Amino acid sequence: MSNSRTNYSAIPEDLERDLPKQVPVYKKKLNLIVGASIIGITGAIIVASTIFLGKTIEPEPKKNVIMMISDGFGPASETFARQYYTWLGERDVKTMLPLDEIHVGHSRTQSSSSLVTDSAAGATAFACAQKSYNGAIGVDPQEVPCGTVLESAKIHKGMLTGLVVTSRITHATPAAFSAHVRGRDSENTIAEQQIGHNPLGRTVDLMFGGGVCEFLSNATLGSCRTDTRDLFSEAEDQFGWQVIHGQGSRQKFDSIEKDVDLPLMALFANNSKKQDTGFFLMIEGSRIDMAAHTNDPAAHVHDILEYQQTVEMVKKFVEENPNTVVISTSDHETGGFTAGRQIGDEYPEYLWYPEVISRVQNSSESLAEAWSLALLSQTTTDDYLTQVLIESGLGIKDVTKEEVQRVKDWKPTATCTTIDLSYIFADMVSRRALIGWTTHGHTAVDVNLYAKGDGTEALRGSHENTEIGDFIVDYLGLDIKDITGRLTKDSNDNSFGALDHKLGPAVYHG
Amino acid sequence: MSNSRTNYSAIPEDLERDLPKQVPVYKKKLNLIVGASIIGITGAIIVASTIFLGKTIEPEPKKNVIMMISDGFGPASETFARQYYTWLGERDVKTMLPLDEIHVGHSRTQSSSSLVTDSAAGATAFACAQKSYNGAIGVDPQEVPCGTVLESAKIHKGMLTGLVVTSRITHATPAAFSAHVRGRDSENTIAEQQIGHNPLGRTVDLMFGGGVCEFLSNATLGSCRTDTRDLFSEAEDQFGWQVIHGQGSRQKFDSIEKDVDLPLMALFANNSKKQDTGFFLMIEGSRIDMAAHTNDPAAHVHDILEYQQTVEMVKKFVEENPNTVVISTSDHETGGFTAGRQIGDEYPEYLWYPEVISRVQNSSESLAEAWSLALLSQTTTDDYLTQVLIESGLGIKDVTKEEVQRVKDWKPTATCTTIDLSYIFADMVSRRALIGWTTHGHTAVDVNLYAKGDGTEALRGSHENTEIGDFIVDYLGLDIKDITGRLTKDSNDNSFGALDHKLGPAVYHG
Repeated sequence: MSNSRTNYSAIPEDLERDLPKQVPVYKKKLNLIVGASIIGITGAIIVASTIFLGKTIEPEPKKNVIMMISDGFGPASETFARQYYTWLGERDVKTMLPLDEIHVGHSRTQSSSSLVTDSAAGATAFACAQKSYNGAIGVDPQEVPCGTVLESAKIHKGMLTGLVVTSRITHATPAAFSAHVRGRDSENTIAEQQIGHNPLGRTVDLMFGGGVCEFLSNATLGSCRTDTRDLFSEAEDQFGWQVIHGQGSRQKFDSIEKDVDLPLMALFANNSKKQDTGFFLMIEGSRIDMAAHTNDPAAHVHDILEYQQTVEMVKKFVEENPNTVVISTSDHETGGFTAGRQIGDEYPEYLWYPEVISRVQNSSESLAEAWSLALLSQTTTDDYLTQVLIESGLGIKDVTKEEVQRVKDWKPTATCTTIDLSYIFADMVSRRALIGWTTHGHTAVDVNLYAKGDGTEALRGSHENTEIGDFIVDYLGLDIKDITGRLTKDSNDNSFGALDHKLGPAVYHG
Repeated sequence: MSNSRTNYSAIPEDLERDLPKQVPVYKKKLNLIVGASIIGITGAIIVASTIFLGKTIEPEPKKNVIMMISDGFGPASETFARQYYTWLGERDVKTMLPLDEIHVGHSRTQSSSSLVTDSAAGATAFACAQKSYNGAIGVDPQEVPCGTVLESAKIHKGMLTGLVVTSRITHATPAAFSAHVRGRDSENTIAEQQIGHNPLGRTVDLMFGGGVCEFLSNATLGSCRTDTRDLFSEAEDQFGWQVIHGQGSRQKFDSIEKDVDLPLMALFANNSKKQDTGFFLMIEGSRIDMAAHTNDPAAHVHDILEYQQTVEMVKKFVEENPNTVVISTSDHETGGFTAGRQIGDEYPEYLWYPEVISRVQNSSESLAEAWSLALLSQTTTDDYLTQVLIESGLGIKDVTKEEVQRVKDWKPTATCTTIDLSYIFADMVSRRALIGWTTHGHTAVDVNLYAKGDGTEALRGSHENTEIGDFIVDYLGLDIKDITGRLTKDSNDNSFGALDHKLGPAVYHG
């Protein structure tokens, strides 16, 4: 393999220490409260460990399931991350990433409404072990609530349950395990259900993630609720949550465990530490998907490698705790990502350039926000664009006049989104690295399936995404049909009957 | 799943009967002899069966390996073919293709010279169980010949050996198992070595495929040799081959077994039927790759589904013959294929349209040749283009003025290639089906690995492509190092010393 490296500049330092400095944490979604950043997945899992992952192995047989979801992470993304990591560290060609070592097969992802799923239908397939339509959050194709593995783990087995995400906690993936609405956009309602306003009561013991605005009264700055309800107060007063968010949350969070990033929000049920009946923990690497939506290869690989570090930690836990399984898979691929790409009409050479990725210092999203901010403050200059943003930020020294002009032609719109501007920056990198993308949306490709722990032999080979839900049901001895029955029975205030407002408005089954 | 189908027109007939009529056999490479077609893979395997796959299970332990290579077939291509097949037949959402049922993991494909391999380095990795540079045919990164599993199977185990391909038999994939040259373009030399002109003598018992021109004297019409050697005569006279090619070959082929397509060339060693020591058979679905290079989704799925039929037949043989394994994988992905694609700036819906693919009646390559021929004979008309080629051939009724103009602007060049014209036709289909491509070349993505038979548990999980060679060595008890020694020892006429002309000219290690 040595002769394959001669074309590349040597990079001496290890990825583990280097990358976080090279590519800053992926920036907040714009509809989140300004100035807040999202908890790092590795930090979150460390904290979750202190609560869930007791050091003592109990003599009684309790079972634990850790379901990891790498949102928007297709097979080519794994290849890309492995090749980049191997190249960066001048490692042996046979180097594998933590996920490679537990590769067992693939998951087939289509939804009931389309050959290409969205995250809502994808997560509902895992949670309810059945296909539903794109947009569905814990409801079946007829919009009827379906019991989830998390709910059954809590109700039938008294297990600890947790959701750890790097997006909003009300976003499609965590929502599908812990709420039931017709359409993923009903995030106000999702938040209500997640804290305990649903026929089952509170079924989640721990939530780490973003999305604080869905919990704040619209009398509060930064709220995205349509009413004046203060869900944090309701959570504490009615359902016994301990809530950490906003000013001072870093200090509170640090008092649990050191070395975590500022969390937007952390909710703990007060009785969390008292239980001893195993746990179900869902961990999502949400931002892998967001980087792919932006078609930003550097941010994509950064978030993949961060996710892999979490995988390594979880694998170690599984090794030390025999009655535990970890499953890691994706809900779908995002971006139509390919390592290798043809630029122009000429037949391409067979290669791509990791060195281009290694020079990137900032996510395209953060650079777009920086340029947008400069526009607002009327401080834009050609030097700022070409030297600070493009040369330092993207590591690109050969920017073309046309590329500069594309940025300068960009105009802010009323919606304040800079996403289309970030596409322009990301494209500069992808073209030079010979990284291809076919969409800012999703594609149909089967995603890799990874698993470790006793009994995971059943997950070898080709599986429908719903069969991952089936596996969890079998492994833990759950009864999601009974949960469906409890959710749908017609009982006054907490009913989920087909016309009930708690299911949110009717939606297009896209 | 039923509600997902309401948007699609019903197609009542089964794929198996339908598709061959819808998409004609993929057309010849242009440097092959004019007018000849390539043997269908399923036909070839039927014929190979009559020679290799005896019905009687022998009492003595003989082992068989069937190595199937789906050239240029990535994970998204398998998803695409399954979804198309399921949609076309209105099958259950859990429908799997024959390969899905034996999915065991993936193969990591990079070569010693690049993160993106070519077919030569890819096949050499399988054959020699080691990485080499792009372009290498059975030689290591230092251009020294490396013994192959086929050669060791013959020399050390006395096994029957065969190569069945749907491309030229001198093309990179079959060549890497049966020849040793510095660069894949030395096909004249490859042909010489394949019939027996190499230090080991003849090691192949059966070759089905195209590429007759490499075997014909340049005094003969249709030759692509640079000398006057008649390799068919040499094969018969010096190495005991029985040769079937050219005029009347269909009849001769039919005398072996009915229901096969016209072969370009078939070579059998006369003693083929006498041996009883197991066999090594390499079968390549070569044209899956060629369709992907053209970015033609309809031809791509046609060839994938033909390959899957062969897989089904081989799986049955493995079930009936306990000491047999089949391995199926790809050397690399081609095209940066994605099912799902964004057209224009608007954020895409999550879907793709199988019905667009189902309306295609001809490969884009055949339509390009038809238009080119009409140009030559000065019989082009607008109606011929829009009604015969585009509406009937591609099933497209809403062709745009711009698309028509692109075809009409195309001009034949001195090289007589119509490949760039075929891109224009293929693009019309891909855009409408929302199928994405990022290149006409290869990409780096890990390819799926499939296997069935005793001992193939060892192939589960993530593997380097070289480990597939290792597996065959272990399974059959081969000694490829000894073969390397025999190939490289300095012995007069048959030497492969570094300067020997038999290795062909020095090449760029791309």
